[in-house]
This record gives sequence, structure tokens and C-alpha cells, in this order.
Amino acid sequence: MINAKIIGACGYGGVGMTELLLRHPEARIAALVDIENIGSPLADLYPHLAGFTDLCIVDAESAAAEPADVVFMATPDGVGMRLAPAELERGAKVIDYSGDFRFNTPEAYADYASRIGRDTRHAAPDLLPHSTYGLPELHRASLTPATAVVGNPGCFAVSCLLGLAPAVRDGLVETEGLVCDCKTGVSGAGKKPGPAFHYPARYDQMNAYKLGGHQHVCEIERELGLLAGAELRVTFTAQVVPVCRGILSTLYGRLARPASPGEVLALYRAFYENEPFVRVFPDDAAVGTAHVRGSNTCALVISVDTRTRTLRVVSCIDNLVKGQAGSALQNMNLLFGLPETAGLDQPGAYP
Amino acid sequence: MINAKIIGACGYGGVGMTELLLRHPEARIAALVDIENIGSPLADLYPHLAGFTDLCIVDAESAAAEPADVVFMATPDGVGMRLAPAELERGAKVIDYSGDFRFNTPEAYADYASRIGRDTRHAAPDLLPHSTYGLPELHRASLTPATAVVGNPGCFAVSCLLGLAPAVRDGLVETEGLVCDCKTGVSGAGKKPGPAFHYPARYDQMNAYKLGGHQHVCEIERELGLLAGAELRVTFTAQVVPVCRGILSTLYGRLARPASPGEVLALYRAFYENEPFVRVFPDDAAVGTAHVRGSNTCALVISVDTRTRTLRVVSCIDNLVKGQAGSALQNMNLLFGLPETAGLDQPGAYP
Amino acid sequence: MINAKIIGACGYGGVGMTELLLRHPEARIAALVDIENIGSPLADLYPHLAGFTDLCIVDAESAAAEPADVVFMATPDGVGMRLAPAELERGAKVIDYSGDFRFNTPEAYADYASRIGRDTRHAAPDLLPHSTYGLPELHRASLTPATAVVGNPGCFAVSCLLGLAPAVRDGLVETEGLVCDCKTGVSGAGKKPGPAFHYPARYDQMNAYKLGGHQHVCEIERELGLLAGAELRVTFTAQVVPVCRGILSTLYGRLARPASPGEVLALYRAFYENEPFVRVFPDDAAVGTAHVRGSNTCALVISVDTRTRTLRVVSCIDNLVKGQAGSALQNMNLLFGLPETAGLDQPGAYP
Amino acid sequence: MINAKIIGACGYGGVGMTELLLRHPEARIAALVDIENIGSPLADLYPHLAGFTDLCIVDAESAAAEPADVVFMATPDGVGMRLAPAELERGAKVIDYSGDFRFNTPEAYADYASRIGRDTRHAAPDLLPHSTYGLPELHRASLTPATAVVGNPGCFAVSCLLGLAPAVRDGLVETEGLVCDCKTGVSGAGKKPGPAFHYPARYDQMNAYKLGGHQHVCEIERELGLLAGAELRVTFTAQVVPVCRGILSTLYGRLARPASPGEVLALYRAFYENEPFVRVFPDDAAVGTAHVRGSNTCALVISVDTRTRTLRVVSCIDNLVKGQAGSALQNMNLLFGLPETAGLDQPGAYP
Repeated sequence: MINAKIIGACGYGGVGMTELLLRHPEARIAALVDIENIGSPLADLYPHLAGFTDLCIVDAESAAAEPADVVFMATPDGVGMRLAPAELERGAKVIDYSGDFRFNTPEAYADYASRIGRDTRHAAPDLLPHSTYGLPELHRASLTPATAVVGNPGCFAVSCLLGLAPAVRDGLVETEGLVCDCKTGVSGAGKKPGPAFHYPARYDQMNAYKLGGHQHVCEIERELGLLAGAELRVTFTAQVVPVCRGILSTLYGRLARPASPGEVLALYRAFYENEPFVRVFPDDAAVGTAHVRGSNTCALVISVDTRTRTLRVVSCIDNLVKGQAGSALQNMNLLFGLPETAGLDQPGAYP
Repeated sequence: MINAKIIGACGYGGVGMTELLLRHPEARIAALVDIENIGSPLADLYPHLAGFTDLCIVDAESAAAEPADVVFMATPDGVGMRLAPAELERGAKVIDYSGDFRFNTPEAYADYASRIGRDTRHAAPDLLPHSTYGLPELHRASLTPATAVVGNPGCFAVSCLLGLAPAVRDGLVETEGLVCDCKTGVSGAGKKPGPAFHYPARYDQMNAYKLGGHQHVCEIERELGLLAGAELRVTFTAQVVPVCRGILSTLYGRLARPASPGEVLALYRAFYENEPFVRVFPDDAAVGTAHVRGSNTCALVISVDTRTRTLRVVSCIDNLVKGQAGSALQNMNLLFGLPETAGLDQPGAYP
Repeated sequence: MINAKIIGACGYGGVGMTELLLRHPEARIAALVDIENIGSPLADLYPHLAGFTDLCIVDAESAAAEPADVVFMATPDGVGMRLAPAELERGAKVIDYSGDFRFNTPEAYADYASRIGRDTRHAAPDLLPHSTYGLPELHRASLTPATAVVGNPGCFAVSCLLGLAPAVRDGLVETEGLVCDCKTGVSGAGKKPGPAFHYPARYDQMNAYKLGGHQHVCEIERELGLLAGAELRVTFTAQVVPVCRGILSTLYGRLARPASPGEVLALYRAFYENEPFVRVFPDDAAVGTAHVRGSNTCALVISVDTRTRTLRVVSCIDNLVKGQAGSALQNMNLLFGLPETAGLDQPGAYP
Repeated sequence: MINAKIIGACGYGGVGMTELLLRHPEARIAALVDIENIGSPLADLYPHLAGFTDLCIVDAESAAAEPADVVFMATPDGVGMRLAPAELERGAKVIDYSGDFRFNTPEAYADYASRIGRDTRHAAPDLLPHSTYGLPELHRASLTPATAVVGNPGCFAVSCLLGLAPAVRDGLVETEGLVCDCKTGVSGAGKKPGPAFHYPARYDQMNAYKLGGHQHVCEIERELGLLAGAELRVTFTAQVVPVCRGILSTLYGRLARPASPGEVLALYRAFYENEPFVRVFPDDAAVGTAHVRGSNTCALVISVDTRTRTLRVVSCIDNLVKGQAGSALQNMNLLFGLPETAGLDQPGAYP
């Protein structure tokens, strides 16, 4: 049995991990850690867990004594890098939800940090070369029992990278002019109330935000650049729509060579042939975010606008599963040599 | 391994059962039966199942050959009673979603049928005395491996009965003047489109319907009458609110004797002490339908209005789980001597 | 032209009044007053007003100089009673949204205040005997140019009182055992963010709240008592459903005498025959909150459960219009001798 | 008083026009025409109109006798072109909601018709040269009392054209590589129920549709081509999100020359300086569809991604107002020499 500690247990990311671990056949929750609600049962904060877990929130210090095989850092930027060294020393693997370990070099991290207005110095720079970007579909070879630190990818990044990777790696699309038009449900903003997420203000409301630059762009460009073998830039738009869960990213790239819809579909199907969580659909499939809600699935609808020679991929994920806790669990499975789908082999509830 | 056949596989009730069986440790789906979409993979109709099941829809005749230990009739009134005898003869147990087997006598059935405008003659009257009303919290003793036919309860009935049973059995409330004010999500109406369930017509819309009489009243009155030891009538209001899943029933009864909120809470807690799926909360708990969505849980918030000497219970279920497929699976577990929570021991995803 | 001042202009109640005054043929906004956002155009806070008004928020002191014929106090309990005397002295009429002027005597106010945990002493007790409860359908005779102070009714109270008044005044229902089961959209909670109104926490969520007692019960009982000629008590349940606007109140009362559905419908139609904003429907009408959204209409669906001898009325309003700003404007019209429907003679937009 | 006839009165487009005409100071509804519900009050079908209009649906023949100054054809493709000649002969002006009169030549119409799979022969080709594309912001000079036939623009087209026109006319963006990523509320699909618009199937669901080609692309390309002085093509994606009303179109174009965000904002502000219904916002404005709901406003958020040299405009309208009935009324005002904002000078209700 793998003992898992969740730090940041009271946020949506922590709760999502709790839900998944409760049904995992080979893992158990060793400790739920947070900086508030210490001593409260998590089920008091999240009554849907009543009857499923009696675990109470503990503070980081108390939890330090608890032996853990893996620590999920469901925490914002800057926390994981401070806590990871001690956890690693205690023998745990670390899977971090934030940007702290998504970049392999201090320079790449500094670039990211400066874009989002944070201190560009990483608190644990020695760990960076040993961390892996936790998108198994692109980095499975580096997600093994030998891996100790994983930077879990950003939710938008998951949807964009899975949608564009086959085309970019193949050279099917030009690396200039890529557009990622992304729509997210409100849960992506976390559990903290604010005017922009107040129910009446959000009801019937769609809008773009952070038009000046979103923190996930950096990792999208880095990963696509690796696939393309060249630096590239994307135009990225984050938009919020009034649903709870779900990201639908519509991705555009100019075809670098003529390609029929059938050829492109075949290319995508081949790329994801053995992937347990990616489904590829033709352009007449009525597939959307409701079909991935609650599961670790990414659904891709592949279309080619032959009139404008444009590839268009619609990529759907549940931002809290494949976009967060699900990916983290998938990474845990790989780091412990378990079947990749353990605890994740379920569809969501529909409708 | 229990082989399960689902008849009416393409409706929401059939899909809900498919989702649950896919994660059940001791059961497998032997056949998905419907009268349309024959030959299509269920996942073509419900893309959220893509990658989780390859099963195709078959017609009833082809499926007859398939040996099944249990048949779920996820079908409307009148179908189960016609198909059940043959299934029983083949050795299967039958769990029927409709009103066909919720009543033990031809007379009780006729009363129900006349209220909803159907032929009052039952097609398989001999089976009625052997059928059990499938609410384990009230009839567990009759839900055993010796049971062959179960009438799965109506969704509104589940929420009302679990909410009122302790008070009625105890004599805490008068049997006259009971009020069930019920609000349901739209999925309760099934998957067939119609003007009343058209997205724009339903958006921002709350309304009452069937004020002249709802089909679930009959079983509520029958079951409560059994508990009270006397015939009784309830005033029942069905209302639809613009969510997908969830029933919130607010239940009112005049106190037959003075009782403090604490005493009443204790009464409910005692009644449900060993129930795996019922959670009892005090009146200041902020618990609602979102906390039972996707799980087989019934959450009860117990309140006493001492000013008006009124018991008020707020009962929350997921209409498609505890109100339908989840109850059916719970019944299956009992009929096969399995742990009652098998396949049902998970919270839903929140938020 | 009537000059209107809105105090509390930045809340939903103030904005609703602004929207209505912008289309009123005989009134104009003289000042928008609030305690924050001083100097900002209201349209910066509420971009839907851009191009429709350039008015900026001012503080109360600056606004004092501004001559006003009417002051709308779109403020919480305790504010109006402190500001009203000075406004009246300057010659303005006062229409207050809170509970400050809903009760005619210091004793009645004290009863209300104690129930909601406020100081029981009224800050302007001399005004109470001159204030009118602003529900024109019940108090039109006292809402005239001679009236200076109006206590605008609570949103739940409007829906319950309009739904029960005909039956209670007529003696059709017993005064004991009245039940008000009320469901409101989230906008009723105002514009201040909080965990209970956070979009993801509210999505798909229905729940009851304040089961221990809601502040609107007091005025419902007082007004119904006046109609009945006897004190009475109601069992009141507030529930919130995930829509933005709308209250649907289902109201139950035991019939005091046998009455057919047709007779009861006729009674209601007669009672509201000349009312411009109340519509009476029979029990098979598919009418709900979407049909009153954005208008000052109250829609009543009248039903009798003859099996249980229970009257059941479904009452629908837009909580921000007939439940708040619309009623306030209706009151203003009456206080200035204008046609009661001025500025209110429009349906909302559907769907 | 202008007498207006609405053909197709029972659809959302007809109802939207009814709502607007009821508050128009210079127009009245002369007849509500449809092919079903003949004899029924419109308020029976749309109870929100109860008390606001008593008008009943009539058939086309009866309505022919009714003198009308303007006929709104709220009808699908192919109807207006058959009915228009007779209406024009009777002296009415015709404003058609469909694609029938959006193109000035039989050839342009044939191109459109072939794209959407209709008969390429127009039923009234002689009228085409006299018809005007009813987007006043681009064609005001041709929308005068001398104009008899207007092709009201498609809802997506309105949002895309208003968003791109300033940049395309100015040559700010390259004419190749334009991308229109459009999200619409469900009301855009009309009032006819279907599986894709069934409430439970649509809840929490976002998806793209008609990836093979949408009927509005044709008019977008034609109009932008006129502005650019050259043929051009756009990549257009229609997506549906679970709200009732609203279109949010995110529009991308590569800058043809370096331009700062401030310059581009100034360009847009100058272009729309005197437009009563277009509001231009900078890229940090939190403006979305909720802010245009219920009004004839188009809100544009202007952004430049300097890293990728891409112009990005977020364009918001209410699909049923500026995207349909509101534009039609705006056109009527121009055709009758009325103030352009008559009947349209109101904000919607927020929230």
C-alpha cells in the first residue's frame, strides 16, 4: 500500500486527490495537511465525503512525522519548492501541482517566474534537473520509479499540448501562428470566493481574462518547442464560461503541407494509439466537455478547414481530473510501477 | 461473477446502471438490450463511455440466449411485467425500475394503475406477492438471495420515505397533514427531448408540474401507511429546477407530541445508525444536493420548528443514483449476498 | 420630473432601481450614493450600464445638497432609520428596502429586531406610525401622495403574501398549519461574494438555509394576521437553487371548508381582478419563474388537493423586481400620483 | 404609428420582436402570423407576455388583409423570398431574418445557397439588387426611407463583423489567417427541442459543431472582403456553451504592421465613435456577455498580443437582440426615419 500525503488538502485540488485516492486499490491517504481548518474532519468542510473518510486536517509539522511514500503538493506557486527537499529527504516522492517543478533549469524557471511576476530565484534549484514535466503522453519514459519529483502540468496546458502535440511533432503545422482559444469552467479558479466568481456575477456570463498573458503559456511553448525542435510562440486566450468543470480548447495551426482530414485523423490516431486516456474523434462527432467530466479522459475532435488550410483541434478535459488530480494520480501510478490506469479506470457520471 | 443484463440500456437509467456495473467488483454486463440503436456501441450514443466499454446494443430476442443472473429492467411502466416471467424462468432475478412490481397485490397495483391512467390489470399478477419494494432501509429483511423480483422505488419516493420513515414509524408526527415539497433536476424526466426540457425553456426556470397528481404518491402513501399502521395521505408537490441531477424534498409533519430538535435528531440517528447510505445532519448543516451528486447517499437535514410544532426534514439524493440505478445495484448486492456497498462505496466528484 | 436619489447604489438593489429609473417617463436619477467607489461611474462597476448613464457614485454628504423628491434606501437593516429623518426634513419621501420601516409600532419593530438579533430600539420611532408596508396589493389605500415613508417588503414576503392573502382574508384556509416552502435564486443574497455563493459551490446545488428562522417570517405573519383578524404563525423554509433570479414559493393551507378548484380559482381571480401586476393561472398552467423574470409580475398557480383538503398556491416573482426594485418603483408611482405601471409596463426578455 | 406585422411570431425571433415592439414609442403590432397555433393568444404560448398583449396568432392569409408598414420575416431560409413580393406590393417594407436577402446578386446568393445545401435559385431575384445587408454600422447610408428590403444579418456575423471591421478596413491585419472562434448560448438554436438541446444533455456541456462549415461564414467573408477590397477567407468555429443567451466571439488576425495596443484601441474607438450600440473596451476590462444580455449593445474588448503580433478582439452580443430582433428593430428605425435607438435605449437587467 502506498502512503500518500496531501498538502493543501482543503482546496479543490486536494479534495479531488482525496476522492481519487479513496478508490485507488494500492494507495491510502496517510495525512491531509493544510494551514487552516486544523483538526477538522475534511468531511465537515466537504460533506460529500461524510461516510467515506474520517480523516482530519493536520498541520505540516504534525504530518512530518507521518511516513509517506508520495506527497501531493496541491498548493500554489512557491510552496512546493520550499517543502519538497524535506519530503524527499524523508524518502517520499513529490508531485507538485504548481509551476514550481515544471521547468528543468533555473533559467527556464526564471523565465516563467518573471512572466507571472514572482521572484525568479527558485528555492530548490538543485532539484530542477531531476524533475519531470508530468504529462505522461509526452514524457512517459521519464516518469518511472527512478523519478522523485514531478511538476504536474497546468490544466490549460494539458488540453493544448495533447491537442497540438501530434501535429507539431510531425511538422504538419507551421510553428508560427498557432492559436489556443481556451474556455474553462469556473472551478479552475479554485475555492476562494471573489467578485468574478460570485454566482450571480458569473451566471450567463462568458468573458476572456488575463488577456495580457496567462501563466500556462510558458509551459505550452516550452513543450511544443521541444516537439518542434525549435522555439515557438502561441497566441493564447483564456475564457471562462458558466459551468463548473471542463476545459474546451480550440487549437488552430496553419497546415505546413496539404493534408486531407482523413490523413490528419490517422496521424492523431496513430500518435495516441496506446494511450489509455486520450480518445480521438472525427470532426462530425458531437463530443464535448460533458463527456469527459469526472474522468481522466482527454477527447480530441480533429478537423481540417481545407478552405483556409488550417488544422483545428477541439480538446476537452475535466480541468480538475486530467487537468489536475487525475494527471497527478496517473503520474503516481507511473512512479510506483503500477498500472497507469489504477484508480482512474472509470467513466464519469452522465448526464 | 454475476452476469447482468440491462433492458432499456439507452436511457439514462440504463446508462447509469452501466456506469455502476463497470466498476462493480463482482458483476459484469452480459448484454445491453434496447428496442432502438441495435448494433450500435453504447459508447457511440454516450461518448463518455468510449474506452470503457465496447458493448453494443442488442435486441431482446438475441439477448434472450445470453445467460444472465440478474436483469435490470430500466424500462417504463408496463414493460417489466411482460418480460419478467421469461427472465425468471431462465433463472434470472429481476429488478424493475418502474411501478410494475412496487405493489404486492393486484388490488394495490390496480389502485396505482388507475391513478396514472393505465390498464389496471397486471400482466403477471402471480409475481406480485413475491416481489419486494426495493428500499433496503425499510425492507432489507425481504431483500435476500431468496428474493427473485424487486420493484425499484421511484426517485421522489426514495427521498420522501427516507426522510419521513423514522418520524412516522415512531409516531412522532400526525399522519394527517404530511406535506412533501419536492424539487428535482431535469434528468428525472429522462433523455427524450420535449418543449418542457428544451435548454432555453428550462434555463432560469423553476415550476411545479403534475399538480393534479404524481405517480410516486401512491407508493409513498402505501409505505408510510405500513409504518404508521394506518392509511394516510400526503400532499405532494413535484417541482423542477434547472439543474441536471438531484432531488431535494422538504418534508413537513405536525408533531404529535412535544419534541426538542435534539430528541428528534437522536431519533433519526438511531434509526439510520447502521445504514451505509443515509447521513443525518443537524439543522445548521449546509448540506445540499451537490453533496450527494454521483453517490448513493441520502443526506437528511433534521429540523423542528418549535413555534409551529412542525417537523421539517430536508432530504437530498441524486435522482439517478440513490433515486434509480444506485438503489437498483444496492438491491442486487442484497439479492446475491454481496456486501451492500459493493460498487457503491465512492463519493461523487465535488464541486 | 421626479428627482430620485438612490442610497446604496452599488448593490444589486441599487442597480435594479437605476435600470428601472432609466426607463421611467416621469423620473430621473438625481444622485447615486454609496459608501465606497466614490467618484467612479456606476457603469465602471456595472458595464451593462455603459452608454446608458454617466452618473458617478457620490458620498452621502455631497448628495445631501442635491434636492430629491424621493430617496430609495437600497441599504441593509439599520441604515434607513438613521438617514430617513434628514431626508424627510429636506422634503423627500423615503422608500426603504430593509426591515426598518416595515412595522408600524416600536413594539412590532422590537419583535422583528429581536428575532434577527439586532438592537430592538428603533432609531426613528416617531416615524413608524407614519410608515406604510409597501405592498400595494394589500395597502394601496395607504400608499398615496400623503404618504412619506414606505417600508418596501422583503422578497420572500411578497411572494408568500400575494399567494396567501386571498385565501386568508376569505377564511378559506385554517390559520394554523400554513406552510411556505420558498426557493430563491442566488441574487437574493446580494453582490457580496462568500463561500456559499461561490460559483462552483453553488452549481448543481440546492439546499435549505436559516432553518432556525428567516427574517421575512415576521412580516408574513403580521400581514397575514391582519388579513385573518387573528395572530397566526407560518412554517417557513428558505431554499436556494442555482439560478440567478426568481422566487418560487409553494404555499400550503388546510381548507377550512370544502371548496372546489374552480371556486378557489374564481376567488383568486376576483381578488386580483384589477391588479396590474398579479396574474392568476389554473393548476395545469406551465408557468414558472422564467415567465416573470425581468418584470414586476407575480404569477400565481392555484391548486387544490382535494384528497387532503389542502390549498396549494405556487407563487412566482423576480426577487429583484417585484421582490425589490420593482415594488419600490410601484410604490413611488403611487406616492406621486402617477400611473401605477409607469416604468413597469414591460415584459422581461424570454427565454 | 408604424404598423408592424411579424411572420413567424411563435419562434424566439418573433417573440423577441414582440417584446421590443411592445415598448417602441412609434410602432405597434398589427398582426402576429404563424403557421401553427392559429387562434391562440401568443401569451398562451409565452406566459411572460400575459397582461402585456392579447394578440392572437393568425394565419398568413388572414393577415394579408391587415395593412402593415413593415413586415418582419422571423422565418427560416426560403420563406421570406416567397412572401416578400406580395408584402412589398401592398406597400410594406420587409426585414427578413434569414439568408434570403443578405446577398445582392443571384450569384452571391447561389454561392451561399450551395454552401448550405439549398436550391441555388432565388425565388425573387429581382429584389436582390434592392436589398441591403442590415448591419447599420457598416451600411447605414443604404438603410434609409428609400430602402424597402433588408436582409437582417446572422447572429454570429454581427459579432464577427463588428469585431473585425475596423481592423480589416484599415488594413491593420492581414486578410489571410483570420480566425473567428465563436461561442453561443443555446437559444441561438431556436425553440424546437432536439437531443442536442435537451437540458440534461446540454448541462455542463461545451462543444463545437458544424465544423464542416457554418452558414454564417459566407456573409462574414463577403462583408469583410468589401471592407478589405479583396476576397478573403476566415476560419470559423461555432461552439455552444450552456447559457441561454449570448455570443462571445474571439477574433484573431495577424498584424500587417506593428501597432501598439493603445493605437489599436484608438483606431476602434474612432471607428465606433458615433455608434449608439457599440462599446469599445481596453483589454483589462472584465466585460462579457452578461453585460450585453437583453440590450442591443455590442461590447468589444481590444487586445494585441505583441509577442505574436496578433490582434485579438473579443466581441459580445446578445444573440437574440443585437444578433436578431434588436438589429431588425434598429433597421426598422432607420427605414422609417426614426431615431435609431427608439425602443432600444435600455440596458438589460443585471445580474
